[in-house]
Amino acid sequence: MKKLSLALVAGLVVATAYTSTIGANEPRPEKSAAFTVRPIGSVEKAEGTTKIVLDKKYQPGLLGLDGFSHAYVFWWFSKNDTPERRSVLQVHPMGNRDNPLTGVYATRCPARPNLIALTLCKIVSVKDNVVEVEKIDAFDGTPVLDIKPFIPGYDSVEDATVPDWLTRARKQREKK
Amino acid sequence: MKKLSLALVAGLVVATAYTSTIGANEPRPEKSAAFTVRPIGSVEKAEGTTKIVLDKKYQPGLLGLDGFSHAYVFWWFSKNDTPERRSVLQVHPMGNRDNPLTGVYATRCPARPNLIALTLCKIVSVKDNVVEVEKIDAFDGTPVLDIKPFIPGYDSVEDATVPDWLTRARKQREKK
Repeated sequence: MKKLSLALVAGLVVATAYTSTIGANEPRPEKSAAFTVRPIGSVEKAEGTTKIVLDKKYQPGLLGLDGFSHAYVFWWFSKNDTPERRSVLQVHPMGNRDNPLTGVYATRCPARPNLIALTLCKIVSVKDNVVEVEKIDAFDGTPVLDIKPFIPGYDSVEDATVPDWLTRARKQREKK
Repeated sequence: MKKLSLALVAGLVVATAYTSTIGANEPRPEKSAAFTVRPIGSVEKAEGTTKIVLDKKYQPGLLGLDGFSHAYVFWWFSKNDTPERRSVLQVHPMGNRDNPLTGVYATRCPARPNLIALTLCKIVSVKDNVVEVEKIDAFDGTPVLDIKPFIPGYDSVEDATVPDWLTRARKQREKK
């Protein structure tokens, strides 16, 4: 009986500790988790065209994409895949010290812990395993991870606001 | 001399083969590539609030996010992380056979080769390692991979169009 009671008490202590950890605004204790992503294709830029060329085996996944005008392309910041670049947490955006020191989660900086990049692209055509897009801010040869259709409403924001530094920085960029 | 010539010819043959492979709308030959992503935190839903709770070590990455009204949250479709679900390439969207068979890259289906999910969220507050958002279509406890600010212009589309089946399906959903 004594052993059982001890086990029960120990269990309660563990359960309480767990609950209070979650309550203290900490994420679930899965610190060792890691997930694998693999390229489904690559960005191919040549002769004035920009194509997302999928590995042939993923071609069935494109069925019906031609019904959408725009899609998100998810790609990998492959030029930044080093432990150093993946440990960057704050930057002066656009490499400009006039922009305030900012967390990578408040920027589109290509150095960040998980090197997932996102570009909303206008679809020009979909043929076989190839999606031609109007443009993408990824280098030729960049690995592509996923494509998702843009769905107005779900993906739209009417009244989004940004910090003043970004408005200024974008105006300066337009002037150039 | 003969040996050298043979080597040159062999080299040319290899170079030509490589070039014509790329020319034939095939992605770069990196079929074995794999990249690792790790959770930076998790979705925590409790008492009517929805929070993105980061691991404390990533807290510096949130500096300045409070200047944005909206952000993309990248999360992992962790309930679908099986070889079977990751090999799904076509579905009837929303599990409804009335919707035409469609490639996963033309849907937001949670079964797909790389289980990256994307939700555009309205930011309620940013405090310490916690981003409170208005809502997110992820389960409580879901691993979060990245956060990026929503930048009007870069992320906006004025005139996006979708297939008829999706317009119908969404109207039916609204009726319910």
